[in-house]
Amino acid sequence: MATQAAFLVKFPQLALSAQPSRGQSWVAVAAGKVAAPRGVRCRAGGLIEPDGGRLMELVAPEQGGRRAALRREAAALPHRVRLGRVETEWVHVLSEGWASPLRGFMRESEFLQALHFNAVRGDDGKLVNMSVPIVLAVDDAQRRAIEASGATRVALVDDHDRPVAVLSDIEIYKHNKEERIARTWGTIARGLPYVEEAIANSGDWLIGGDLEVIEPIKYNDGLDQYRLSPAQLREEFTRRNADAVFAFQLRNPVHNGHALLMTDTRRRLLEMGYKNPVLLLHPLGGFTKADDVPLSVRMKQHEKVLEEGVLNPESTVVAIFPSPMHYAGPTEVQWHAKARINAGANFYIVGRDPAGMSHPIEKRDLYDADHGKKVLSMAPGLERLNILPFKVAAYDTKQNKMNFFDPSRKDDFLFISGTKMRSLAKNRESPPDGFMCPGGWKVLVEYYDSLTPPEGSSKLREAVAA
Amino acid sequence: MATQAAFLVKFPQLALSAQPSRGQSWVAVAAGKVAAPRGVRCRAGGLIEPDGGRLMELVAPEQGGRRAALRREAAALPHRVRLGRVETEWVHVLSEGWASPLRGFMRESEFLQALHFNAVRGDDGKLVNMSVPIVLAVDDAQRRAIEASGATRVALVDDHDRPVAVLSDIEIYKHNKEERIARTWGTIARGLPYVEEAIANSGDWLIGGDLEVIEPIKYNDGLDQYRLSPAQLREEFTRRNADAVFAFQLRNPVHNGHALLMTDTRRRLLEMGYKNPVLLLHPLGGFTKADDVPLSVRMKQHEKVLEEGVLNPESTVVAIFPSPMHYAGPTEVQWHAKARINAGANFYIVGRDPAGMSHPIEKRDLYDADHGKKVLSMAPGLERLNILPFKVAAYDTKQNKMNFFDPSRKDDFLFISGTKMRSLAKNRESPPDGFMCPGGWKVLVEYYDSLTPPEGSSKLREAVAA
Repeated sequence: MATQAAFLVKFPQLALSAQPSRGQSWVAVAAGKVAAPRGVRCRAGGLIEPDGGRLMELVAPEQGGRRAALRREAAALPHRVRLGRVETEWVHVLSEGWASPLRGFMRESEFLQALHFNAVRGDDGKLVNMSVPIVLAVDDAQRRAIEASGATRVALVDDHDRPVAVLSDIEIYKHNKEERIARTWGTIARGLPYVEEAIANSGDWLIGGDLEVIEPIKYNDGLDQYRLSPAQLREEFTRRNADAVFAFQLRNPVHNGHALLMTDTRRRLLEMGYKNPVLLLHPLGGFTKADDVPLSVRMKQHEKVLEEGVLNPESTVVAIFPSPMHYAGPTEVQWHAKARINAGANFYIVGRDPAGMSHPIEKRDLYDADHGKKVLSMAPGLERLNILPFKVAAYDTKQNKMNFFDPSRKDDFLFISGTKMRSLAKNRESPPDGFMCPGGWKVLVEYYDSLTPPEGSSKLREAVAA
Repeated sequence: MATQAAFLVKFPQLALSAQPSRGQSWVAVAAGKVAAPRGVRCRAGGLIEPDGGRLMELVAPEQGGRRAALRREAAALPHRVRLGRVETEWVHVLSEGWASPLRGFMRESEFLQALHFNAVRGDDGKLVNMSVPIVLAVDDAQRRAIEASGATRVALVDDHDRPVAVLSDIEIYKHNKEERIARTWGTIARGLPYVEEAIANSGDWLIGGDLEVIEPIKYNDGLDQYRLSPAQLREEFTRRNADAVFAFQLRNPVHNGHALLMTDTRRRLLEMGYKNPVLLLHPLGGFTKADDVPLSVRMKQHEKVLEEGVLNPESTVVAIFPSPMHYAGPTEVQWHAKARINAGANFYIVGRDPAGMSHPIEKRDLYDADHGKKVLSMAPGLERLNILPFKVAAYDTKQNKMNFFDPSRKDDFLFISGTKMRSLAKNRESPPDGFMCPGGWKVLVEYYDSLTPPEGSSKLREAVAA
């Protein structure tokens, strides 16, 4: 199953050519493409510029009483839109500038451009990539009330009715769910996790506008220290004197094959003349489907991987990417890549079938395994990003370790399926030596052990913003 | 019903502002944007440059024996792909360069870009608009046979097995129909006319490659003289010393409201300093759904409109646009506009709900009526084209003629629905004086009169390429 792909030993080998994408020389990338961000609120310099030239940080400043004033205003506003889990995650994403140059939930013009072109035109006329709609739904009664009042500002509140943000200069437009789903996923088959979670029962209207968030979104789940904003990541990369940042997204445990891929990428970047390439190991932390390994378990596993020296902490930054997951394959992988530009990454590693899953009804993968990589390499607005595709690798039974797959001695390699790996962990059996660091494997075994009732029968709990 | 919209009195008024789209001054458009095409085979100069810089004319030249050689080769090639009606229309479209810079049926890279971005990147790295897939399907047996033989060239043949073209440097890739339909139409509801006609029963693979057509596609239906190629249109515009070309697409009869719109556009362009704006009245001539008025009737009606002086033949070129119709709304209108750039048009008139129709299952329009206009104005690769949206107009009962709708005296206006108009024509009744020229109305009445059995019960015959 593609949903388990990144989990597996069936992972790819880095195919890093001597030339970066689209014929730029590596030196040009290092010397010419790394301009300091112009944004007044963007604190870190020396890295790839954010989309649109500045990071859109939309949290009210701590100084000057703006937070208190905004909280008072939000409490008094006549119209309140309640945020669900996924909407709160989008407020988080928007507030930190992952979706720069978006200033809030999409208005119709941005929504249409995302749906039709996977890119929006900035104020300067240039295209920036924006492949998934970041939208907020309201129902018909809310729309009528807001429109009847002529309001231009609404409060966004959490599930306890506490103000989270204010949306201003609002625009309300139709939410054609069928068209949105078809153009985002390339199917409207029932059972798409994000659709079930965030679209199917949402309102028939969308409300866009400029977002101002009262205070930083926190989840109080013991993982907030990993939730670094793009500005914080840029600061960290600058502090480390990174001259290249390569991002790797996972929503699965890190096995030694992933680690090999990441260390090999750094080695190659060094060979090409970079002095200090830094890895952004960046697991997705928002909504995932019920059978994905929960974030807390994954983070515990990642900690072990660094503790046990499988990855070098000196050249690795582990942080959480707060976006919810669409499982929209070639469409979504663009979002994943684009968001990392805003965090300062100028290299993006793309695997087999990124953001893919099984078709919810038919017995096949939803997307061609190589479409994500192809679409990513051609996407408007991602020209500045170097895409690093990687090839299949496996467990090398001759060397007793994870190794890049060598077709000339293919019988030496063992491909362990996701199902196989899960059943090993569930049965407290061990994978072959060298597949994953022992501490990391233990985390997995304990997780599956804790699953009562058996997997799939109930939805796993995940942290929700407090 | 939206499908009848252009048929109606419910048509739009030109909203031509003093400024062209995207802040260019009109003078700049006239003086700076009108470069001669660079293509060696593009014969007409002085007009907007074709997409990619040259017109892709893919018919073998008459001189030099190339046609005979190609015909011999095609007859001898081991693999033959049979063209249906719609595929033949696409061969026609491609052969004349409407889809420049495409050199043939799309390979996977172009297909993916069209689906995801509605634009493809040319050899120079620039985006040109390309919103609908122009593809050729083959079945599994054909794919296996071609791949087993290692062939790089296949013959395209008509339904009598006569060679039409050769496709070379071929690439075969998967035809994920569900994804193609979802991303093109924003729905996968059953009953989409193009899907039923050209996709539902087509093969599970697509074959792309460079096209070389043996001789110009002809239909021998008495209308071929109207099927002017982009190069022929450019010659005609140049012969007339056009300094602006504004295109208007219809797939319905021309009523006096349309005529008012077109003459008013010319007047405004003259006011803005153009010396000789020429109208390209350009009905769609390929596949249409069964309840659209057939091409032959429409062309007869258009002839009457010009004969009776409703449009000025001096400043009007009537020709047939050979593309089949997708009814894919905002996606398809981009194709309609882009193709006209290749024919030399630098202004494109866009109406209400262009290329729209009713949802095949639900009781609503498939697309928002204003999405086509919005998407067109934002589409990558159409920056050079001036989009002219127009507003609703109606029958002015005070002046007894079609007039731009004036909301300050809205009770004076009569909106005649499509259903009403059809029933008038069917019942041999007359519309209000001044709605349509008498000769044109007579053509319509005769057409509906000839329909036995009653409309909708059988598919209307249309010309198929001989």
